[in-house]
Parts: sequence; C-alpha cells; structure tokens
Amino acid sequence: MHRDLPIDPIDDETILRGVIDRATTHLLDPPRGADPVIAYASPDELAATFAGTVGLPIGADARANPDERLLAAVDQVVEWSMHTSHPRFVNQNFAGADPISVVGDWLGAALNTTGATYEVAPVFTLMESAVLDKLGRLAGYVDRSEARLPALPPGVFCAGGSMGTLLALQLARHRHQPDIATVGSNGDRLVLFVSASGHYAARKSAAVLGIGADGVVEVATDRHGRMVPEALGDAIVEARRAGNVPFAVIGTAGTTVTAAFDDLGALADICRREDLWLHVDACYGGSALFSAAQAWRLDGVERSDSVVWNLHKMLGMTQQCTALLVKDPTRLAACFAARADYLFQPDKLNGEYDSGDRTFMCARRTDVLKLWLTWKARGDDAFAARIDHAVAMAERARRGIATSDGAFVPIVLGDFTNVVFAWVPPKLRAAVSATGGGQLDVAALDESVRSELHGYPPRIKARLQEAGTGMIGFQPVGGLNAFRLICISPTLQPDDVDALLRAIDSCGLDATDAPAPTGH
Amino acid sequence: MHRDLPIDPIDDETILRGVIDRATTHLLDPPRGADPVIAYASPDELAATFAGTVGLPIGADARANPDERLLAAVDQVVEWSMHTSHPRFVNQNFAGADPISVVGDWLGAALNTTGATYEVAPVFTLMESAVLDKLGRLAGYVDRSEARLPALPPGVFCAGGSMGTLLALQLARHRHQPDIATVGSNGDRLVLFVSASGHYAARKSAAVLGIGADGVVEVATDRHGRMVPEALGDAIVEARRAGNVPFAVIGTAGTTVTAAFDDLGALADICRREDLWLHVDACYGGSALFSAAQAWRLDGVERSDSVVWNLHKMLGMTQQCTALLVKDPTRLAACFAARADYLFQPDKLNGEYDSGDRTFMCARRTDVLKLWLTWKARGDDAFAARIDHAVAMAERARRGIATSDGAFVPIVLGDFTNVVFAWVPPKLRAAVSATGGGQLDVAALDESVRSELHGYPPRIKARLQEAGTGMIGFQPVGGLNAFRLICISPTLQPDDVDALLRAIDSCGLDATDAPAPTGH
Repeated sequence: MHRDLPIDPIDDETILRGVIDRATTHLLDPPRGADPVIAYASPDELAATFAGTVGLPIGADARANPDERLLAAVDQVVEWSMHTSHPRFVNQNFAGADPISVVGDWLGAALNTTGATYEVAPVFTLMESAVLDKLGRLAGYVDRSEARLPALPPGVFCAGGSMGTLLALQLARHRHQPDIATVGSNGDRLVLFVSASGHYAARKSAAVLGIGADGVVEVATDRHGRMVPEALGDAIVEARRAGNVPFAVIGTAGTTVTAAFDDLGALADICRREDLWLHVDACYGGSALFSAAQAWRLDGVERSDSVVWNLHKMLGMTQQCTALLVKDPTRLAACFAARADYLFQPDKLNGEYDSGDRTFMCARRTDVLKLWLTWKARGDDAFAARIDHAVAMAERARRGIATSDGAFVPIVLGDFTNVVFAWVPPKLRAAVSATGGGQLDVAALDESVRSELHGYPPRIKARLQEAGTGMIGFQPVGGLNAFRLICISPTLQPDDVDALLRAIDSCGLDATDAPAPTGH
Repeated sequence: MHRDLPIDPIDDETILRGVIDRATTHLLDPPRGADPVIAYASPDELAATFAGTVGLPIGADARANPDERLLAAVDQVVEWSMHTSHPRFVNQNFAGADPISVVGDWLGAALNTTGATYEVAPVFTLMESAVLDKLGRLAGYVDRSEARLPALPPGVFCAGGSMGTLLALQLARHRHQPDIATVGSNGDRLVLFVSASGHYAARKSAAVLGIGADGVVEVATDRHGRMVPEALGDAIVEARRAGNVPFAVIGTAGTTVTAAFDDLGALADICRREDLWLHVDACYGGSALFSAAQAWRLDGVERSDSVVWNLHKMLGMTQQCTALLVKDPTRLAACFAARADYLFQPDKLNGEYDSGDRTFMCARRTDVLKLWLTWKARGDDAFAARIDHAVAMAERARRGIATSDGAFVPIVLGDFTNVVFAWVPPKLRAAVSATGGGQLDVAALDESVRSELHGYPPRIKARLQEAGTGMIGFQPVGGLNAFRLICISPTLQPDDVDALLRAIDSCGLDATDAPAPTGH
C-alpha cells in the first residue's frame, strides 16, 4: 500500500484488479443450480470468519492491510453474501440484476459525478431527460410518440421508492396549500388514502411530513388485495364529516405482498370528483406497462398526477433506480426549489437543464446511466419479455400448488407475479383446504390449526436458509404466516419453481418431526 | 443480443467485457495533466454526437443496438462526461473518488442486495455496524476505544446529506413532541436555527417536514462564515418572544462555500441551556476528525445529538456514502419504525440486527462496502493524509493569491480547504484591494466596480469550461460573484493550483477584451 499522496491508481493495481476480477467472475459466472443461494451464518460466525483475514470491526488506529489478506476478505464478502441473482432467490420484490445494468452502474461509479447540474453531468442530464420522456410516454403523461430531450422532463430520479412517495405527497400537499414550503402547515388536519395492502412508505412519509401516520386512512381491499373503490368514496365522506381535510389518494399498482393492482380508472374518477391528487405507487408494478399482455393492469394511470416507479424491481436495474413521474413538471420547482446560488447560478451555461432545484436532494448518484445503457442494449421487447416470463413462472407455481394434494393451500393466489400460500402438514391436509374462490378462509380456521400453520413458515425458512437451497419470504396475511413466492428473477425456470415447492414441503415435513428452533 | 430469457451473462459477454474494459481503463489511467477536465458541449451538440451511435432519446418501439455501436456510445459517455478525478476539477465539495472505493462500489453492485435486513445483507449489516461504531468513536458518541459490532450501532446510512438532515430534524421534532409520528404536528410554530452560511438542506427539510422554510432562522455569521454564538442566543430569545417554539439548532462543520466551522462547544452550551437538539451538519467537514492537525475544528461535536457526515466528500467515496450518527440510537426506531410485517418478522433469525426499521428508507444500496474496503486497505493514516494534503493545497492557493500583484483579491480566504476570491482586471487593481483582515470589503465598493467584478466569474468559467483547462465554481458572496477553489482532490498538486490561478487570470484578461457571451 502506498500512502503518499496523490493517490495514484497504478500503486494500487493489485488490489484494484483483484477486486475487479472477483466482481467480474461473479457477474459472468454467478452461483446457480446446486450452488447455495446463501451460505447462512450468524453474526458471531461471520465475525469469526473475517477475523481470519482483515477482521470486520475497525479498531483504534486502524492500519492498512496487505493485498493478499484484503483479497481473501473480498472472497469472503462474496462467499457469505446473498446471491440475489441465483434462480432460487424469490425472497423479495427485486432479484437478478441485469448484468448490463451492473456494468452501466460500474461506469457511473468510475466517472463519479452527481446528477444535480448540467455542468457536471451533461451526458447524464440528457439521459435522464430521454428516459423520463420515454417513461412519461409509457405512462400516458406525455401525449406524443416522438422521442425528445426536454429541458424540463416529466419527473425526476430519486433515491428509492419511499423517497418518491414522500416527494409525491409533498407535491400533493403543495397543491392543496401553495405556501406550504414557505410558511408551513396551515393547521388543516390533512388525510390521505391508501389501500390496506399499500406500502408502509405512506405512513412513514406522513410521519415525516408532520401529518402523522394517523392521517393515513387505510381503505378496505377485496380478497385479492385491491382497494375497493366504493370504500374509498365512503372513507372520503367520513373523513370530511369528521373535520379532516382529504388531499391525496395513493393507488397501488402492484402491492408488496400479493402484487395486486388497484382500479386506477375508478380511483381517478373519485379523485376528480373530490378534487384530490392521485399518486400511483407503481414501484413494483409500473414495469407491467412494457408488456402488451399486462399493461391493462395500469389502465387509468394516465389520469393520475404522479407515479413512482422502481426500475430496480421488475426491470432488474441494480439498487437503486427510481423515477418519480409528475404530470405537470412545473410543480416540481414550485414545490422544491431553494435556489442555492452556489449551484444554480442564473448566469451560467445551460442552467435550464439543471434538475437539482426540482427535487429535494442535492447531489444524486447518476442512476440513469445503467437504465439507459440496458435499454439501448436490449430494447423495449426485452423488458416486455422479462415481465411475461415472471407471470409465466408464477402460473407454474399456481399450478404446482393446485396439484400438491393439499401440501400447499392458496392464501392469495393472484394472477400476476406473486403467489401467497401456506404449507400444511399431512395430518391437517384433510381439514385445511381452499374454500370458495380457491383461497383459504383463514378466519374460519380453528385457532389450534391456525396457530400450528402459522408456526411453520419461520421454521421452514430457517431450514432453507441454513441449507442454502432457497430464499423465500413470509408474512402474516389475515393472521396466518404465509409464504410469498415472487417470480421476478429472469433466471427463475420451471424446474426451479418445482424444486422450491418440493424443498418447502420437505423442510416442512422435517420441521413437524423436530422441536421449534431456539435461535441460531 | 440475445433476448430469450433467462438472461445469461455469457450471451452478453462482448458488451459486458467492453464496458468493464472501458471503466477499468478510466480508473487505472484517468485523464490528468494536459487532458481536458471536460469536453464541453451544449445539449444540441451532445444530441448530435450520440446520434452517430445509438442516439440519446429512446424512441417508440426502441430496438436493441449492436454491440459495436453500443461500445462506441460508451466511449462517448466517457469522452463527454466530467472528469472529476482530474486534478483541475475543483468545482465542488467532492472530487477524485478513491479507486478502491470505486471497485468496492462495483462489487456491491455485482452482489446487488439491500441494506434493510440482516437476512439479505448479513455481511453488509455487520460492516455498517463496524463503520458506524468507528465513526461514533471518532465523533465521541461512543465512549470506549475498543471496536465492536453492536446490533444497534450509533446511527444509520442514508442516501445523501439532505436526507440525513431531514431525518435528524425529524428526530429533533420527535424529541420535542414524542407522538409526532402518529398524530402529526400539535400546531406548535416550530423554529430551528442554522447559520446564514449553512446548507440549504435545512430550508428544504423544513419545507418537507411541514414546518416551512420560514421556520428556519438564519443566524448571523462572522466574516469567515462562522455562526456568532451570541447571535444564536439572541435569536432564540427573540423567537420565543414572538410565540415560536425553538426545537433544534444546526451547527455547521464545514460550510458549503467557505468551509467554515461553527464553534460547536458554544452551540452545545446554548442548546443545553435552552433544551434544544443540536444537530451537526458535518457533511463536508466531518472528515477533519481523521487529522490530528485539523480535528480541533469539531471540538464539542461529542456533545451534539446527531451528526450527518458525507464520506463521499472529503474522504473520496463514490456518490453516495452518508452516515447519520445519533447519540442515542434507540431514538431511531422510536421515531421511524413502521414494523412492516413482510420484512421485520419478530420470529425470524437475527432480526435485531435489521436496520430497515430504524430509518425512513426501505431498500438501500449497500454503500458501506466501499468505505469498509477502503478503510481496511488504507487505514486511518491515509484518510488523515487526504485531509492534510487538502489543507496544504489550499495554503498554496492562499499564497498564490497573496502574491498575485492584485490580480486576485481575497473575499473569504479561510484557513481550511476552501479559498474564495475575486479576479480583478488590471485597470482596477490599484482601486480594489483587501482591507483590514486581509479580505475585500465588498460593501465598500463603488457600484460600478462591484458590477464589473461581478460579471467576470461566469465569463471566465465559461472560457475555462470550453477550453477544458479547469472546472471551478463561483457564487455571490455579499453581492459579488466570487470563485470558490475547493482543494479536496488528492490528485491536486502545487503545480495544478498555480496553473489554475494562471488560467483564471488569462481567461479574465481575454474576457476584458471580448464582449459578454450570449450563451452557447
């Protein structure tokens, strides 16, 4: 290690090339098949493992480590991390980053600039314009088919879906009270509406906005997890009657657990009638717009006021890549501009392209490059194929559950990419089965049965983790822990779906014979 | 391009290796010396350039492009982007990403997981614990020298400094009103205090919090840009007299323009007396804690309640790497937890390490890896050397200005890394000079002189940009556009400092002979 300045990359070539080789190998030849999804270890075990190389903690007077030990530590990082591109990582609403996105991300990191001003990010500023223009056309916000590079595109990039939701709700509040950014809340008891299956970012945002989580009215959903529009109408009337002031509705396009899509057209009708801002949380489901077979799920989105869309979810960008689309982009600067004179000088070149004064954040990573590059490399069709593949794999899982002789019982089967189900031990398979509509009526279960079924997912998941054979999430649905199989990884194949179901059944059978785990 | 799923990286090997080669070349052999800092182009020129490869806009029915055209476009991305690691990029409070940070970032992107839960990010969760524990010890928040890996470390990572400020102010408000996150604002007319030289994130955050930018009281600064503690005391008294409710003070450790450090000990005294939350915006200057010669600037930080610290500024991490330190970390979950049951199941393994319910964001990029890797590779001493080098280069600039025979006049010379000055045309050099304290008294200038001096920085900067010889910022200080030379790039050498000053003088002399530009 050379510690004299200036830092010269050539002095660090061994470590740099060593890390690049390892990252490249992981990218071109990722774990798959019989490779473990995760080599699961407890915090103590990981600390002991890294103690053999450079150690995880950073001590007082931390010293430089020799290259070979550093590279051994890098091998450990790869070995003990989650392999999200493994076909059997179905744990979350992201998976399987597109390798082109990964290298686009690498190039952005090597260039290391920020997205706030044209002067330090000319190419990336225009890429944002290009991508936001295209996303705006897909969402029906821009009423032309011709591609352009507007100085004021219909939205901004931001750091994740929760941030997008926060900014959208501030835009909605700004519409209700145009001087909010200057004088603060006028004291109205603001309320907003989101389905009971909507993302918790609504409550978290309301807390930060000073509205409070109690200002988020959770509207009833049907048994698929879709907001019931009539219930929304009733909730608005009820809120006004109670002296509260409705200002926004969040429609969800792809809920977190069941991937349900609210009827955006019906919500838009209500918002027009009630003069409310309609924000669409399309973090998960927005990418359905690419698929001719699936785009109908977002019908009505063109009538909304804002959309937040995570391209790092279904579209496979690396963490993170989030677009907040805004139908009237002049609202952005009106709501967020601070006119910092050290950045947004009125007398500099091409300042009208600067995005920094149209959003909350100052410096931003140039997340657009990876998306633009992947788009130029693969085209619209590849994005559509990614969505269609995900739905096909979910169909495979639904068929597997239907033909499992009672080993699995549907909780919310859905018709998109998420399949939510319970595992049933053999002794209960006769007693527990789907009722009308093909889903289990959890409320009708005997408490002893519910309690027993509820206990299996954490125990089965722990066994899958420890064996590294699969990574699948669970959460309570109607009071019963249910597995959530999310089929968005492009590496997921029919055999993997079948194998995952078999592994869950097998771990379940083992768990019925074993005492409950006491922790690891 | 293969468009059949599953995406198999081996099908894309040409484009993947092509991008990796280009990014690696840029990393190992970056532009320097006579290479341009930027090949400056207008939006129209860039659009025309890219039209020769794959085009910037994304059309209707966008198609896949062949590899050779894509790689030609990647070459254009590099050629036309800002080269922030070039020694003569002194435009901003970031520059020169450490190459080890860059490859750490690459590895994180290849592994593509999120930082919210231990189960999907076991290694990165423990790295966050290690780094936050060490940063907490540096800031005096953790009162021991022994390194640990606590399940509840003293802070969280977040997406940028503005986000950190927002979260800190919400924590401060939560202390004032513990039910804020649930019931919303109780109607108190909250005010917070920050120096007039503080970052605009305070106003932007107040707007989003529903307090409003008017709730941010800007406290007077001395001529170096440091908050005057007595003025803070007076402002608090005045605010209470007016019926407002003070709840927080932001002390700045390294202001955006002059890199001034508020007297944190004096501010802590006032905050204790007045029962206010003290947040320290150490986004820029926090890294001075690494330097034995500079750490005194943050004396008193250990008495604050929270600190936001951008490791992507002075420490050279890639965009972005931000730590929000919180002295009492139990406040985080109390303020931000939403207890989403699909992520933070009480019955899963090692859930007590999950950071996701201690912050606002859900998914987060694993920004910690690059910092941990760089730290293990270089040690504390290299970080200290980076800071000391920056201050030495700023000293070089101050000497250059002092010996410029009046070509440059100090506006705020400072004694840290930022040097703020004006360029003076020969005909005015006799009339314009520093008065008492070695700085120009802008207010005492003739309006015609002020107006003429004010006009030069944008014209000089445009010439530097168009020639690619240097990239330096300017902003009004006391009504006069002044250059801001930020000496934090580790590649910046004495010759570069001298050459930058010569280039500014030369462009200034050219500008006096030419009409004002009409735009590009």
